[in-house]
Amino acid sequence: MLKHLAHHLRASLFSARCSRAADAVAKSAFEGSVSFSSSTAMAKSKFEYVRNFETDDTCLRNCYIVVRLDGRNFHRFAEQHNFVKPNDDRALGLMTRSARSVMEELEDIVIAYGQSDEYSFVFKRSSNWFKRRASKLMTHVASQFSSAYVFYWKDYFGEEQLLLYPPGFDGRVVLYPSNRNLRDYLSWRQADCHINNLYNTVFWNLVQKGGLTTSEAEEKLKGTLAADKNEILFSEFNINYNNEPLIYKKGTVLIWDKVNETTTKHVKLPNEDSEKEVTVTRTRNIITAHHCDFIGDEFWEEHPNILEDDCC
Amino acid sequence: MLKHLAHHLRASLFSARCSRAADAVAKSAFEGSVSFSSSTAMAKSKFEYVRNFETDDTCLRNCYIVVRLDGRNFHRFAEQHNFVKPNDDRALGLMTRSARSVMEELEDIVIAYGQSDEYSFVFKRSSNWFKRRASKLMTHVASQFSSAYVFYWKDYFGEEQLLLYPPGFDGRVVLYPSNRNLRDYLSWRQADCHINNLYNTVFWNLVQKGGLTTSEAEEKLKGTLAADKNEILFSEFNINYNNEPLIYKKGTVLIWDKVNETTTKHVKLPNEDSEKEVTVTRTRNIITAHHCDFIGDEFWEEHPNILEDDCC
Amino acid sequence: MLKHLAHHLRASLFSARCSRAADAVAKSAFEGSVSFSSSTAMAKSKFEYVRNFETDDTCLRNCYIVVRLDGRNFHRFAEQHNFVKPNDDRALGLMTRSARSVMEELEDIVIAYGQSDEYSFVFKRSSNWFKRRASKLMTHVASQFSSAYVFYWKDYFGEEQLLLYPPGFDGRVVLYPSNRNLRDYLSWRQADCHINNLYNTVFWNLVQKGGLTTSEAEEKLKGTLAADKNEILFSEFNINYNNEPLIYKKGTVLIWDKVNETTTKHVKLPNEDSEKEVTVTRTRNIITAHHCDFIGDEFWEEHPNILEDDCC
Amino acid sequence: MLKHLAHHLRASLFSARCSRAADAVAKSAFEGSVSFSSSTAMAKSKFEYVRNFETDDTCLRNCYIVVRLDGRNFHRFAEQHNFVKPNDDRALGLMTRSARSVMEELEDIVIAYGQSDEYSFVFKRSSNWFKRRASKLMTHVASQFSSAYVFYWKDYFGEEQLLLYPPGFDGRVVLYPSNRNLRDYLSWRQADCHINNLYNTVFWNLVQKGGLTTSEAEEKLKGTLAADKNEILFSEFNINYNNEPLIYKKGTVLIWDKVNETTTKHVKLPNEDSEKEVTVTRTRNIITAHHCDFIGDEFWEEHPNILEDDCC
Repeated sequence: MLKHLAHHLRASLFSARCSRAADAVAKSAFEGSVSFSSSTAMAKSKFEYVRNFETDDTCLRNCYIVVRLDGRNFHRFAEQHNFVKPNDDRALGLMTRSARSVMEELEDIVIAYGQSDEYSFVFKRSSNWFKRRASKLMTHVASQFSSAYVFYWKDYFGEEQLLLYPPGFDGRVVLYPSNRNLRDYLSWRQADCHINNLYNTVFWNLVQKGGLTTSEAEEKLKGTLAADKNEILFSEFNINYNNEPLIYKKGTVLIWDKVNETTTKHVKLPNEDSEKEVTVTRTRNIITAHHCDFIGDEFWEEHPNILEDDCC
Repeated sequence: MLKHLAHHLRASLFSARCSRAADAVAKSAFEGSVSFSSSTAMAKSKFEYVRNFETDDTCLRNCYIVVRLDGRNFHRFAEQHNFVKPNDDRALGLMTRSARSVMEELEDIVIAYGQSDEYSFVFKRSSNWFKRRASKLMTHVASQFSSAYVFYWKDYFGEEQLLLYPPGFDGRVVLYPSNRNLRDYLSWRQADCHINNLYNTVFWNLVQKGGLTTSEAEEKLKGTLAADKNEILFSEFNINYNNEPLIYKKGTVLIWDKVNETTTKHVKLPNEDSEKEVTVTRTRNIITAHHCDFIGDEFWEEHPNILEDDCC
Repeated sequence: MLKHLAHHLRASLFSARCSRAADAVAKSAFEGSVSFSSSTAMAKSKFEYVRNFETDDTCLRNCYIVVRLDGRNFHRFAEQHNFVKPNDDRALGLMTRSARSVMEELEDIVIAYGQSDEYSFVFKRSSNWFKRRASKLMTHVASQFSSAYVFYWKDYFGEEQLLLYPPGFDGRVVLYPSNRNLRDYLSWRQADCHINNLYNTVFWNLVQKGGLTTSEAEEKLKGTLAADKNEILFSEFNINYNNEPLIYKKGTVLIWDKVNETTTKHVKLPNEDSEKEVTVTRTRNIITAHHCDFIGDEFWEEHPNILEDDCC
Repeated sequence: MLKHLAHHLRASLFSARCSRAADAVAKSAFEGSVSFSSSTAMAKSKFEYVRNFETDDTCLRNCYIVVRLDGRNFHRFAEQHNFVKPNDDRALGLMTRSARSVMEELEDIVIAYGQSDEYSFVFKRSSNWFKRRASKLMTHVASQFSSAYVFYWKDYFGEEQLLLYPPGFDGRVVLYPSNRNLRDYLSWRQADCHINNLYNTVFWNLVQKGGLTTSEAEEKLKGTLAADKNEILFSEFNINYNNEPLIYKKGTVLIWDKVNETTTKHVKLPNEDSEKEVTVTRTRNIITAHHCDFIGDEFWEEHPNILEDDCC
């Protein structure tokens, strides 16, 4: 105890040289009546100046806040957990389950989009969640997504594939001032999904069915255009890329939808012995998944409430 | 497909009005030979301008980078998972296990400190991990910690307490330019640990053994000094706070230590039939946990390699 | 010279301890053939790491960039330079002359607004001036405005009032993502102009014509509404506030206008002895000043080219 | 007036659609008793939300804050104002006079360094000037420097060279966490000064005395080392670079010095008819200019109060 106090004194003397306001501290310490605890309370207030080193990272108002997560070393993670190539339905399902968990937990996410090992979450323009502090927003998204990923692993991989180690994701925040910018961001990710999936589909067919090594397949695809890849798929493997599952070609969009839930209740009427059946309809917000194109306007025209008006 | 293309055209015309460089796009689209895929590749490059909205959040050089995580709604989480009050050894163990996972995964963390539902991770001053990008650093820490927390849950809570839902943590980044600032930050957290633990220890003794309601206990502690709390513990519950476990009073420090590992190898000598026993000593870095005071100088004198010289 | 070299060696050895890449330096220094100058060139490259401490402050794309300047201690400055109260036409003219200088010098400013000792400059949404680096934008505006203020002083104050010392302005950058936000910013400044001017007009009439002391005038105006102030002006000083000059009530807006300039040229015709008069009309951009309301829509409808479309 | 009000109403209805809190506005507006002025006051509060778009740019604590200014297009400015090549004493003097004006006006600048058309200002580590807001610090420095540059022009260029137009400077803020970093920053600028001055001295001697064109001189110096340049100066122009003025080779450092000022006062003694002479010594802070090397340690050892202790 005394030793502890001695440390405090030394610390305060030390800091006194450094011209931090240690006077009061040093003074009361020498009065002799200082108990251990008041010395600690005192210490805490002495240290609290370190809070001023935190910087404000509030996101500019009236902009969409996008948090994008990417799997860390997921190439290796996929290998070690025997992911089916080029697309593993279990892994895609788990990603989307985790994204749902994020949307349910964090208010104000109006749309999320995922493909491969990445997911983007869009907070509404006028959101004031976490006072728009970028660090809070992105760490909470990253944390919630990651813990959900481990939590729901078994629901998707069952006992056939155990999770070998805790995976990591990193994230970033990007702001978009207009609906056009936001739509172009999402379009960029969906175009990326398409390009990668076409490549991967051909690549893995060449390897798995065509008997090529991975380097031979890589070599063969070097410089090919999309039309060439479509042609290889069709002529060599009898696959029409257009018939591939939409979830692979377009990724997954999560949005909020309103549904009417109708339930029947048995209500006992006052002054009567008999019951009456009453139909109750409630509107509930639920998250729905879509695998459609949203580069064009149709998706946005069908869901006019996702975007806020630019004129605000 | 055609419809898809039509969307693209509309989008590109639309954006043309907005003076983004859509000329080339519109031109090639009208040439008629545009297949779906080249249109998508084209689209991707058209959308890529959105990357310029990402801002650089590189941390100032030659400063310690601290990432602190805090549990989200952990009061409720602790209730629902029947955490022992005031300290649950399983929960504290799991926090530290998760922190180890972070340190093993992310290079350049030189010290970590945890107490209650928070953990701070300190990257060395000269670290260039993730090019010092704040968003990457804090999201990766938050993600790795969270997935480890769920992954190792069973190792600490066994079958007696299932994890009911995926927990969330939020984080922040703070920079400290000098050793004194960093030590004062850590001291601030350790002083906070002490103050909270003393309060909680008295509070829960009053409730659990003293039979007070939580509001009665709160009322009784209002305005009391540390000495008063020590006195209540001693006179009413025969507890000397000094004898409480260090892990509760001081929290947990994780640092890297070098250990010598000696192994015996059997080596076949050249030109001889016999084998020889050879003792091989390797130095290995391991993470060690400590529950000591580091407000004073002793800890830092004993571990001179944690801090880098201020004169750099 | 030798002494200088010795300093270098000491510096490099010093820094070697600090683990900056000083090896090459120390080595070549000891080879003995190092001349002063190569040592300095060497030194420069050794020091250049300090550039990495500069942070990127690029303004978010697709937002209006507003730089607002405010006079430093202009209350005192106005006193010392005998500014007429409540409005000094010379001072207002000089402010606007300085703002013109800024607009002529910095590309991409589409509108500027000034009142009292402040001026706001709005860069167009799509501007890439200075690569949108906030620090460059605001310092250049502050610098150009200030040097113009001193340069043109005599044009407005003549010999009757010398400039006694160089005045200072400070500035800030604010981003506005939408036309509505930008218009509301400008409206905020114009509403501020009106409120201050009404107050100051009554206040100085009470002092200059009413014979009140400044504190008596302050006291009299405490709690009064605009209607009360209008009433005082009218009943006590026979002033109808509506007839006050627009420049005082509305401030000054600077925008770019196109004007047609017609000049007559004498052109010598080929193969002829005679000349011919040719009328040439050129469109030129000039800065025009306006003192009108722009809180309403009229101003914006009349000048549709100031704002860019929100849909971009 | 009425029209003005109508505009307001339209504006408020417009914004109502955009879900900004315009309810109160719309309501009171329809009550009919709204005078012009209350409508404007109301408007101002309606617009004030735009202040929330300002972002906090507080500089990290316990770091040196450096503001560096650079002349805009000073190559052209020097040409047009007939600056003597390679060094114009009048221009250097004016730069330093302007820098003094900055130091006198802004508290907490502990050292400034200038060369050519640039000047760096260093705020002390613990400064809280302008609450450490980067934008305020750099714009005020840029503004004060620029207005002083024009204000003092005549003191240096007299009537022989009029100032033709107001010059511009741009600036930036850089933070340095340690004394070593700050010294390396200043050393970087001084090494830059030396390298440029050696080059310029040879270049202009070749042109002015050697009769070379500027492109011939440039060609001749391509690839030369410092020793080569020294040799050209000595063999062709009989100039020993070491004897060149220090202000050209080292630039100008401004620091605060304490001086004792002794004045003699005549004091009338009480109860006596005679006066007594009293010598009064006051310590006063003055800015002094130095043209010495500060890459080595000597300068810093002689002025130990410029830097604050790293251990704080």
